[in-house]
Amino acid sequence: MFQSFEATSTPEQGPPRLKALRAAMKTQQVDGFLIPRSDAHQGEYVAPCDDRLSWLTGFTGSAGFSVVLADEAGIFIDGRYRTQVKHQVDTGHFTPVNWPETKLADWVSERLGDEAILAFDPWLHTIDEVEKLSEALEKKGIEAAYWENIVDEIWEDRPNRPTGAITAYPEELAGRSLTEKCDLVAEQLKAAGQSAAILTLPDSIAWLLNIRGSDIPRIPILQAFAIIHATGMVDLFTDAPADQAVRTHLAPRVALHPYDGLLDHLETLEGAIRVDPKTAPLKIWSHLKAREGLTNGAVRPVKGDDPCILPKAQKTEAEIAATTEAHLRDGAAMVAFLAWLDDAAPKGGITEIDVVERLEGFRRATNALHDISFDTICGAGPNGAIVHYRVTRDTNREITPGDLLLVDSGGQYLDGTTDITRTVTTGTPAEDQKAAFTRVLQGMIAVSRARWPRGLAGRDLDALARAPLWMAGQDYDHGTGHGVGVFLSVHEGPQRLSRLSEVALAPGMILSNEPGYYREGHWGIRIENLVAVETAPEIAGGDGRDQLAFGTLTWVPIDTRLVNTDWLSPGDRDWLNAYHADVLEKIGPRLSDDATRDWLKRACRAI
Amino acid sequence: MFQSFEATSTPEQGPPRLKALRAAMKTQQVDGFLIPRSDAHQGEYVAPCDDRLSWLTGFTGSAGFSVVLADEAGIFIDGRYRTQVKHQVDTGHFTPVNWPETKLADWVSERLGDEAILAFDPWLHTIDEVEKLSEALEKKGIEAAYWENIVDEIWEDRPNRPTGAITAYPEELAGRSLTEKCDLVAEQLKAAGQSAAILTLPDSIAWLLNIRGSDIPRIPILQAFAIIHATGMVDLFTDAPADQAVRTHLAPRVALHPYDGLLDHLETLEGAIRVDPKTAPLKIWSHLKAREGLTNGAVRPVKGDDPCILPKAQKTEAEIAATTEAHLRDGAAMVAFLAWLDDAAPKGGITEIDVVERLEGFRRATNALHDISFDTICGAGPNGAIVHYRVTRDTNREITPGDLLLVDSGGQYLDGTTDITRTVTTGTPAEDQKAAFTRVLQGMIAVSRARWPRGLAGRDLDALARAPLWMAGQDYDHGTGHGVGVFLSVHEGPQRLSRLSEVALAPGMILSNEPGYYREGHWGIRIENLVAVETAPEIAGGDGRDQLAFGTLTWVPIDTRLVNTDWLSPGDRDWLNAYHADVLEKIGPRLSDDATRDWLKRACRAI
Repeated sequence: MFQSFEATSTPEQGPPRLKALRAAMKTQQVDGFLIPRSDAHQGEYVAPCDDRLSWLTGFTGSAGFSVVLADEAGIFIDGRYRTQVKHQVDTGHFTPVNWPETKLADWVSERLGDEAILAFDPWLHTIDEVEKLSEALEKKGIEAAYWENIVDEIWEDRPNRPTGAITAYPEELAGRSLTEKCDLVAEQLKAAGQSAAILTLPDSIAWLLNIRGSDIPRIPILQAFAIIHATGMVDLFTDAPADQAVRTHLAPRVALHPYDGLLDHLETLEGAIRVDPKTAPLKIWSHLKAREGLTNGAVRPVKGDDPCILPKAQKTEAEIAATTEAHLRDGAAMVAFLAWLDDAAPKGGITEIDVVERLEGFRRATNALHDISFDTICGAGPNGAIVHYRVTRDTNREITPGDLLLVDSGGQYLDGTTDITRTVTTGTPAEDQKAAFTRVLQGMIAVSRARWPRGLAGRDLDALARAPLWMAGQDYDHGTGHGVGVFLSVHEGPQRLSRLSEVALAPGMILSNEPGYYREGHWGIRIENLVAVETAPEIAGGDGRDQLAFGTLTWVPIDTRLVNTDWLSPGDRDWLNAYHADVLEKIGPRLSDDATRDWLKRACRAI
Repeated sequence: MFQSFEATSTPEQGPPRLKALRAAMKTQQVDGFLIPRSDAHQGEYVAPCDDRLSWLTGFTGSAGFSVVLADEAGIFIDGRYRTQVKHQVDTGHFTPVNWPETKLADWVSERLGDEAILAFDPWLHTIDEVEKLSEALEKKGIEAAYWENIVDEIWEDRPNRPTGAITAYPEELAGRSLTEKCDLVAEQLKAAGQSAAILTLPDSIAWLLNIRGSDIPRIPILQAFAIIHATGMVDLFTDAPADQAVRTHLAPRVALHPYDGLLDHLETLEGAIRVDPKTAPLKIWSHLKAREGLTNGAVRPVKGDDPCILPKAQKTEAEIAATTEAHLRDGAAMVAFLAWLDDAAPKGGITEIDVVERLEGFRRATNALHDISFDTICGAGPNGAIVHYRVTRDTNREITPGDLLLVDSGGQYLDGTTDITRTVTTGTPAEDQKAAFTRVLQGMIAVSRARWPRGLAGRDLDALARAPLWMAGQDYDHGTGHGVGVFLSVHEGPQRLSRLSEVALAPGMILSNEPGYYREGHWGIRIENLVAVETAPEIAGGDGRDQLAFGTLTWVPIDTRLVNTDWLSPGDRDWLNAYHADVLEKIGPRLSDDATRDWLKRACRAI
């Protein structure tokens, strides 16, 4: 079982660790120390050795940070974690602070005098982040100072850095060799007059070099830094072991170095060096800035996007073919799961954890599952309205027949990463549930059917997904969709379906399409397919305009018992019926079990 | 008759004027001179004394510019004017250049050597415009140099500056006194630490001071500059005569100066002076920059938005009430016009000019028309597909019964500015016409019905208007809507319904909602209402979210003979039927003629 339901909650360890930290801070004459949740690679998940926030405070949420002062320690958490923090953290010693409502600079300045020093580890914060923070603190007369990590100094039994083995990723799945990719990125650098770029995002490195690792749960990456030179050669900094096959794979382009060797290696660089201010640790920037001074500008860091992000997002035909297969495999597992659920749930006696376990079981039965792509969100009744809900032994709820059940899950397969949400009824749905489900479905179909002129960003399409809810005075407080990788991160950039996304959608980009509606304390609804941007197919009567469209990757029935059929436009209804006909055709032959196939036939009936 | 159908075309006057200009350029040792279409106030229309482009070249289009070199002169025009330019300009002496495809800097640099001087009049170009142009020219080794206007030097019979009388605008229509408005703007300046702002947009000045003028056709403004001080006092620079009543109206806040007195008066300023780089002439900026040097920074220009633009765009309740009345009056005139048209057009024998004349006649019959708000666009059959078509004696087309007829027009009334497009059939519509009309209508209704979270910009809603066309592989190549003033400009900013608009929509903003579809060489369709942003009304089952919506201002029937009723969603159909019921109720009682009232009843029948 990949997923765990234990909320490791050790609030009693916080106070003595806090005391030790304060002693070290006093010795070093620091007024405050900042402990973020992230590591140097800014990923969603961190290795145990980097989980400083949880070690110090007990808090295990996926976002937040702590600021420790001599007399008070704040734990900054957003709306998702206001209940959890009370269970996991000794709030007598750590004061929960509502973030982002309360700004770090304001909170600190109300407690520290002028000329105070707030120290932070420059490996754990991006260039942009530090710039904003320093500016805000400076206005309050407080200095943000780079420091060695004081938590690491007092953390005696700190785990070792993970060293999962590197594996080569098959070129027939990637669609491009590592030399092709290195040349592609090197061209960008040459065009920009830059001699190299520093890569700090593990999924950029994994993509570029056609490799995968196992250092971090849920995402098959290795902890590494890399330098890609305008020559197309790469220096890779990692402690992950590489066997002979991997060394042979890397040999044409890649020199291997220890993880800690990056800074020393920066000394060998010349010319303009690209660093991504949105993702790279400040440490790298400041080190290169110092070199710029020492070399009279012969070495100089310049800000620019990680050059792998955009080509990685635009999947090759081979990657789309691979993930299509992964989605069909995953779809068959989901169908078997939904058939089981539809039989079991109305009988009562099963819990959210039972559902998560059974779902993971169906995915494991494919014999192809490397990991789940994230901890399954399975919320019955009111838990469905908690957008980032993760069931634990404490919150586990028995499904009451009649509950809406929201299940958001995915699998990591060698050929693809899936992410799907289905919301199902376990009895007779109420009218307000059907009304909301139908509106969410209308938005989800509007995105699925959309064609649009090349050049638009996710921001330009977001309204299509929300309009049916807006018209009813409703909405959802999350993005409509995020980028998704191929056997990489289930959340990848730069594309998004969101009011915040200005990146032009381009063929090959995979996105989730997941509008929702949440009635707090009662139930939640979300419907999610993955889609891939493609050149829009020709259309009769069209004007030959250059349009893009979404191709669907996810093939799993949508619960039509929750749909007010007569609310759908003829076009939307046709789409839904055609989708279900395709699901039956694509998934039916993959089912081994007659009962499941019969269930699928019923679930795919036209409405 | 306000509208004229003569395309004053005097190509033969171009060559001798060009010769005189070149002689003056040679004397002054200038290699090129730039002649834009705009005046110092960057409006859509210019006074005869500022119409240098037309005087020199013969070209009367609303956009374009000429660059005169010693051996060649280019006339840069966009797609709309490629035919017109050939009729109006002696192309043996002025080379038509496709713009913006061909960049000015490229064209010039291919013809001039290094260190050449391209001169321009810094009163006629904005700060942003010159910055971009200078940068592009500098890369080619050419200097963009500020110069006295050489055209003015050789233009012997140049008309005088217009001096229409100033009138005071009734406070009960504006909803705010001039002192309230001056205080409101002064607060902005104080908050920004600025001592004054230079106003160069005539409609900003007219709004701020509750005055109107008659210097320019189609827009009731005066040619003026103004300085508003952080004290709330205003210096107004204009040659427009103000009688005693106007002087009394202005007295509490405004000191009057001659139009040409602005530069001298800048000498009296101190502190930070706001200048809008998007609209203010470079001359003002450079003059203040020089003062900054002379005063050691005691005077310094700073870039910032014209402080009137946003408060002007957010109409008061009084302005909305006033323009509502103007729209009902205009609506009754439009209904009388459409009833006449629907009788006359199918009989044949009437031309586009006949239609424009009759429409202006119906508006004049209200006895309240100050002007038309722009030259009526009336395109029959293929002329309807020319988005900026203006009929002339040369292009005038007789309506063939069966043609689609597109009529886009508006009126200037003391209480409001209208802008409406209706497309009607004059026979039995073809299936492809009905299909396109229905899609355009679906988009127009989607915008009309939209509710959205406060904070969104026009960009975020644009897709709603286009999606029905996109889905058919179609689109339109213009914005969905523009801001509209109240007895001011029919095109005002900053709000727009457009992919390019990032300005948050706010209550009181008036916008056009005008999707369209154009089949080149055959027919064009556009449907346009004006709408005003308002707080969305409460809705049963809504979640109490803070939403905005559009209230409709325009009440004139939409031709239902062109609608495929069964394509509409139930909600869209309800909207259309409710709209027509409202039109009948609001406009019916305003009609004096029984036959027109009967026509309106038929036109407003539910479908």
